[in-house]
Amino acid sequence: MEDAPPMITAATLSIGDEILLGQSRDSNAPWIARRMLDLGVTMVAHAAVGDDRDVIASTLRDLARRAGIVISTGGLGPTADDLTREALTDVVDPGCAAIEDPAALAEVEAWFTGRGRPMPPGNRAQARRPPSARSLTNDHGTAPGLHARIDGTDIFCLPGPPREMHPMFERCVAPIASASGTGAVPMRLLHACGLGESEFAQRLGALMDRHREILVGTTASGGIVTARIRARHGGSAAEAAVASAALAVRAAWHPFVFGEGGTTLAESVGVLLRERGQTVAVAESCTGGLLAARLVDPPGASHWFRGGWMTYANERKVEDLGVPADLIARHGAVSREVALAMADGARRRAGADWALSTTGVAGPDGGTAEKPVGLVWIGIAGPTGNTTVHALRVPGDRAMIRDRTVLAALQRLRLRILSALGPADAGGGGMPDPLLLWEVPPGDRGDGAPLGAPR
Amino acid sequence: MEDAPPMITAATLSIGDEILLGQSRDSNAPWIARRMLDLGVTMVAHAAVGDDRDVIASTLRDLARRAGIVISTGGLGPTADDLTREALTDVVDPGCAAIEDPAALAEVEAWFTGRGRPMPPGNRAQARRPPSARSLTNDHGTAPGLHARIDGTDIFCLPGPPREMHPMFERCVAPIASASGTGAVPMRLLHACGLGESEFAQRLGALMDRHREILVGTTASGGIVTARIRARHGGSAAEAAVASAALAVRAAWHPFVFGEGGTTLAESVGVLLRERGQTVAVAESCTGGLLAARLVDPPGASHWFRGGWMTYANERKVEDLGVPADLIARHGAVSREVALAMADGARRRAGADWALSTTGVAGPDGGTAEKPVGLVWIGIAGPTGNTTVHALRVPGDRAMIRDRTVLAALQRLRLRILSALGPADAGGGGMPDPLLLWEVPPGDRGDGAPLGAPR
Repeated sequence: MEDAPPMITAATLSIGDEILLGQSRDSNAPWIARRMLDLGVTMVAHAAVGDDRDVIASTLRDLARRAGIVISTGGLGPTADDLTREALTDVVDPGCAAIEDPAALAEVEAWFTGRGRPMPPGNRAQARRPPSARSLTNDHGTAPGLHARIDGTDIFCLPGPPREMHPMFERCVAPIASASGTGAVPMRLLHACGLGESEFAQRLGALMDRHREILVGTTASGGIVTARIRARHGGSAAEAAVASAALAVRAAWHPFVFGEGGTTLAESVGVLLRERGQTVAVAESCTGGLLAARLVDPPGASHWFRGGWMTYANERKVEDLGVPADLIARHGAVSREVALAMADGARRRAGADWALSTTGVAGPDGGTAEKPVGLVWIGIAGPTGNTTVHALRVPGDRAMIRDRTVLAALQRLRLRILSALGPADAGGGGMPDPLLLWEVPPGDRGDGAPLGAPR
Repeated sequence: MEDAPPMITAATLSIGDEILLGQSRDSNAPWIARRMLDLGVTMVAHAAVGDDRDVIASTLRDLARRAGIVISTGGLGPTADDLTREALTDVVDPGCAAIEDPAALAEVEAWFTGRGRPMPPGNRAQARRPPSARSLTNDHGTAPGLHARIDGTDIFCLPGPPREMHPMFERCVAPIASASGTGAVPMRLLHACGLGESEFAQRLGALMDRHREILVGTTASGGIVTARIRARHGGSAAEAAVASAALAVRAAWHPFVFGEGGTTLAESVGVLLRERGQTVAVAESCTGGLLAARLVDPPGASHWFRGGWMTYANERKVEDLGVPADLIARHGAVSREVALAMADGARRRAGADWALSTTGVAGPDGGTAEKPVGLVWIGIAGPTGNTTVHALRVPGDRAMIRDRTVLAALQRLRLRILSALGPADAGGGGMPDPLLLWEVPPGDRGDGAPLGAPR
């Protein structure tokens, strides 16, 4: 990475035993990374260490060799386990002791007196800094930040609490980062589901070549595959190149891309329904409320959500949805026939345009040779009166089976809504049969495949 | 840290552009850190880098110098940006190319054929390994792990998805780590909700003193406050001291502690219901299925969950639950009266012992001066026929309002189930009035307060 000419690089160091021991989640490193991307600075690494002066110092030294800007967070408090000030001194002024900064001390004292109390003696330590560093004013707490330079690298030590760190970053780090950066590096995220990650990647072909000007990477998480389309530097040409690559990814992944940026699948389904003035209801067995919860996640859900029934128990399927009791007796609750009757019943009962049903074996118990754990039926009743039923075999535990069932139901609904309008409305590219059965990707490293033939 | 005699150290490396760029949260490093603590291994550092072969290799080299066990996660997928295999080869077999491992290839192929389909060509790359490394079987996905040794350090490369990584860690890493570790350092986690973190901390008093033999810390996340009770070293005396401190925390937090270790609130409610042979139903408006979904999360939920209605639309409240239409017209859907009628209707309709109802303004729109965003009513209908109604004012956004409403409803149900049996069955310590109204903590840094008087 070091050979590209105008590229400025950054690294973060998160300091604290609670982070090292996995007891607190570090939100600072991801936040700084996203801001650096905005500013056109390339991240090279994140590190996290405990409250240990030597380890902090050696890690700062190492990161300073690898990046042009190093930003640490944490370890600037008033207590004995706050060691960032001393460690930075070891790095930038080796052999020297930290000194007390009179201006910083005045600010710490003012912070207390402004709140009508004297400064506790312990807080005096917060005004210390390496002789060659400068203190950074903290408008939101008692911990001044620090800024030093070593061998051309800027080191910033910022306080750990985000509400103190964020404003100090914007005031002290962002101007230096953006002066060195290439301007915002254009990036787009496209989200899809319905195939495994390797199949999505295969569809991208040469787009994923690591030597192209635009980098395309994929990430799979929770059954959703995301394409990350990123330029190597800023500028309007890069912007256009990213936009064009995003179009190519959309075409390659058609019709499975459901959203961009922070859009969720439920939101994209909600938008489709709202655009058409249509509504949906749900009848859930194995997903037990999760599908409804997802559908009412987006604001404005009352426009498209007409109601739901959690018919976990069979008598609820009969009484609430009008599923014939003998249908359940003949085929079992987990069956094509019952999924179909549940969807029809929910649509009729709610007076909705669409209805989704789920019934399956979520486990861990209750599986048989004929109906193993992970077998799920999804029903979709639609405005034209034809109800489709789809079988899934979802691997994983109870939580995963329910989660992937919800994803599959929402994506299938989305595809049916789109296909009802014909290919022209569904975006470019040949529209494959959206009712083709496909399995939910079995893992985050998806490797699901179309089943090829309806069951 | 290096001078303590029998101390074995570990470091993690999280690999992936999505982590480096701050777009995905890395849950693997904290999870590994907590497991290492259990095993008596001392963490020294976490690092995260992007999908860059040279950077991965140099970071692995650096961490191997600093720790006895290095564990990387991610970068073992089938696509062109999965570079961990090649980077590890650069580290442990410099100058050599990765080779294809026939046994690993057979396992990857078997994974697909076991699911009735051929292995996509791209997945063949997953069977590659450094010549001197061994492949680790992945029972939950297609990515084999890797294990190599360099200069006395064990390097493990594990897949990124937690459901693949966790079992591989337990099978391949834990035995080596625990053989080198000092033995488990006793630790207990107690989970509570219903007060803010600062109030819970205040109840602990001197138990939180940092100079005690047993360290007690609190963490608040998602409305739940967790006490972390930890010894400084292993041994049976430490074990007993931690157990006794845990009892003291339980007493101080009574009756709000709902579980220990990995227990969820829904699980503890499920256990209480199942012990009593009782059942519950739900009628949800603002939570839209989330409460039901939580209640059927635990395995065996069919024993206690009798059904649910997502009556987001008013006509569903009337038709499904028998809420009088004029009650809604007079008081509005978000009202004490409607919450009460919903709970009664759900209990009657489902033939359940208990029923919970929720109705509130989840926002972002729909708030008024009289009924602002965040106002939620919870109804609890019980076996003795008395239905209680509770008002909450939940701060935050739509997702937080719904999430905290579910927590509050479950905790209130738990307290009502316990109080129905009298204080003797609810554990030691004076039982405060469990029906006392309290607000849900407004933030993760809780500062909610008991309202003191029923509304």
